Amino acid sequence: MSLDAVLARIDQDLPAATDRLLDLLRIPSISTDPAFKADCDRAADWLVKDLQDMGIDASKRPTPGHPMVVGHLGNGGPHLLFYGHYDVQPVDPLNLWDNDPFDPQIEDTPKGKVIRGRGSSDDKGQLMTFVEALRAWKAVKGDWPCKITFFLEGEEESGSPSLVPFMKENADELKTDIALICDTGLFESRTPAIVTMLRGLLGEELTITAPSKDLHSGMYGGIAMNPIRVLSRIVASLHDETGRITVPGFYDGVPELPDELEAQWQGLAFNHQAFLEDVGLSEPAGEQDRTPLEMIWSRPTCEVNGIWGGYTGDGFKTVLPSKAHAKISFRLVGDQDPLAIRESFRKMVTDMLPPDCEVEFSPHGASKASGADTSDPMFEKARKALSDEWQIPAAYIGCGGSIPIAGHFQKILGTEPMLIGFGKDDDQLHSPNEKYDMESFHKGIRSWARVLDALT
Amino acid sequence: MSLDAVLARIDQDLPAATDRLLDLLRIPSISTDPAFKADCDRAADWLVKDLQDMGIDASKRPTPGHPMVVGHLGNGGPHLLFYGHYDVQPVDPLNLWDNDPFDPQIEDTPKGKVIRGRGSSDDKGQLMTFVEALRAWKAVKGDWPCKITFFLEGEEESGSPSLVPFMKENADELKTDIALICDTGLFESRTPAIVTMLRGLLGEELTITAPSKDLHSGMYGGIAMNPIRVLSRIVASLHDETGRITVPGFYDGVPELPDELEAQWQGLAFNHQAFLEDVGLSEPAGEQDRTPLEMIWSRPTCEVNGIWGGYTGDGFKTVLPSKAHAKISFRLVGDQDPLAIRESFRKMVTDMLPPDCEVEFSPHGASKASGADTSDPMFEKARKALSDEWQIPAAYIGCGGSIPIAGHFQKILGTEPMLIGFGKDDDQLHSPNEKYDMESFHKGIRSWARVLDALT
Repeated sequence: MSLDAVLARIDQDLPAATDRLLDLLRIPSISTDPAFKADCDRAADWLVKDLQDMGIDASKRPTPGHPMVVGHLGNGGPHLLFYGHYDVQPVDPLNLWDNDPFDPQIEDTPKGKVIRGRGSSDDKGQLMTFVEALRAWKAVKGDWPCKITFFLEGEEESGSPSLVPFMKENADELKTDIALICDTGLFESRTPAIVTMLRGLLGEELTITAPSKDLHSGMYGGIAMNPIRVLSRIVASLHDETGRITVPGFYDGVPELPDELEAQWQGLAFNHQAFLEDVGLSEPAGEQDRTPLEMIWSRPTCEVNGIWGGYTGDGFKTVLPSKAHAKISFRLVGDQDPLAIRESFRKMVTDMLPPDCEVEFSPHGASKASGADTSDPMFEKARKALSDEWQIPAAYIGCGGSIPIAGHFQKILGTEPMLIGFGKDDDQLHSPNEKYDMESFHKGIRSWARVLDALT
Repeated sequence: MSLDAVLARIDQDLPAATDRLLDLLRIPSISTDPAFKADCDRAADWLVKDLQDMGIDASKRPTPGHPMVVGHLGNGGPHLLFYGHYDVQPVDPLNLWDNDPFDPQIEDTPKGKVIRGRGSSDDKGQLMTFVEALRAWKAVKGDWPCKITFFLEGEEESGSPSLVPFMKENADELKTDIALICDTGLFESRTPAIVTMLRGLLGEELTITAPSKDLHSGMYGGIAMNPIRVLSRIVASLHDETGRITVPGFYDGVPELPDELEAQWQGLAFNHQAFLEDVGLSEPAGEQDRTPLEMIWSRPTCEVNGIWGGYTGDGFKTVLPSKAHAKISFRLVGDQDPLAIRESFRKMVTDMLPPDCEVEFSPHGASKASGADTSDPMFEKARKALSDEWQIPAAYIGCGGSIPIAGHFQKILGTEPMLIGFGKDDDQLHSPNEKYDMESFHKGIRSWARVLDALT
């Protein structure tokens, strides 16, 4: 049977595949919030059952956190691993959602049909593209394309605390010829892409304490140090006037872009105006001497992801708070050393503290940047398969977000990661009203069928 | 009959006076919580009955919120008004109380007897000092010291929404020669004091918007402006390195402390180390060229009472938020013009915005500072009476917090407010285990007898 028959089967089965995805999306598997622990477990069970129903030897594997789902199928040919994650981001602010984030809907929009709901794009919709491609393959051909290992995680949105220990303990079982990772997007929502440059991530939460308890700002204002004032000074000093990050030694190990890649990226003719306009902005806010694509793909960043302190409810309360907090993350590139940067950041903050103030740090992940070795011929085969499906030449690109798993495959298992995904720029990942285009889902499934055909 | 006889009567009646106060303290008149509406009403009834039993023409007067208690007594002499409030603060966190907050107890402590319970100091215990002084006066002398109007409020702890309308509607009835307000404390728990300088208050909430929606910091970090970064720069710039506030024109109308008052304050030998140590601090954080007492009483301040933006829950969410918010308040002194400062602050913030950012302001009150005109000879008479009772020279002091009622008496009724109270620094106002020293209660009653004697 030919690839065409598999593709036809995919087209025909799309309504049923969509129903299966909606079913999975109804499970509120928010991994960061302990209140949703049972739901994460339920999502893992759902996947195990779905894989088992297809005849795959799948099981739920316990970890100290949320479980892994591991499955094995096929014999012969190259041994591929497929990675995705079944956990999703929190949904607040809930009032900005037009619908219940866990009551997913198919919506007609001016740009076509979309699947709306938390996790539709990140990452349940994406991971199901691969599952559905295999389902169609098996239905049409009666057998699997090659030997494949499923490795599905439930802690990706909360820093993957169990991932590395699990990979180390099960290295023999998880070691394969290549690792397909489906958690990225198309370039500019239309060019198929394989991500070959991934930024690392360093997260830090800090709490500044000034007075030992909340005070009345009328009684103590002026004479007592306000921790919000201290925290604001620290945050304000993280970037200089040209957008450069001021943490000492931060740029150690940051490489310049190779000429070859620079040329390829210029060929992409990235429309940064449209990229920014889409989110209500017009001017790139990063380092002033860098191109917009460098800012989002190959330069390191520092962002405050959250800040809070004092009274934040309705009305006014003239409190002078005891504590102020911030969550800060750094995206890392090249050979930047997350642990050295953490130490330098902590020293810089501590050095800035005025008398009577204390700081407490709490770490949230520290992963180096990683890049794929595209000299493996499987990369060119996959690139051609993607170009065929989308009728646009696929590109090797960078990725602003961190996908630490890619580095773990390289470092722990010696397996080269290949990142292919079908998300679009307007999918509202991590935001209210997240969606996944029906086109992403449909052509995503077809893409995997073509990639599997090309690699085997 | 002499003042001594009145004082003796007060000493003798103290146990009965204490029982009356305990009775009033048993009524949970929490004004902010609608569940306690009937209790607020009950407290008003209790006061009306107690005043009527003394032969005072007292009544409960309805408002859209909790009722006022108004009473009239006496003829001739100066016409005094007495203000206090019968409502109390909420009691949560309840688990931090050693006893039921509404089952008041007399406790022996290393520092002497205390009356423990919600409202004991703020303000039921304080208001009863005046009632008991009058009761003793009448019992001994058979007549009143002068013409007196009682004006007792039940909404002070919830922003006094009915106060100004009631004062305006009943201006003729409430207009007197002076208004005695009993809701303040002794200086450093031992020096009798009349508060003569009250700071004004200007509140502003601001919201900075950068991108039009929350973004993924991996996708947009670096290239998209982060509103927390913008807000932090603004907050950090509100004070310069010497602690001065940088809003242009902010210090217009700020008077230097008169030499006389400066000398008086130096005489107070304020122990700012102890004041700060009490809340875990050691160094005054205000303007470096000002004394600690100036910082809390006579200098204007700027405090951030709240800040928030992005993800503030447990764990980490790599969001680049659309909005960041802060609540900022200014304490004003002298002739500082709240509306001019509001305008200047808004302009300063707006001028600091980078491209693509917007700011929205929302005002929260704007009141000028007020000061009592101590040239009225009644002030010196009262000061001498207090000095006699406490055997320590009474002082004219400032007050960091705002007591809006004082300004209302001046502005609406043209009546000079005289703020005298007997609370101590460790009374735990608004906190669990509130108490009022038996010394405050006893000598407070005696103080009023002396003040009434001096003023009439």
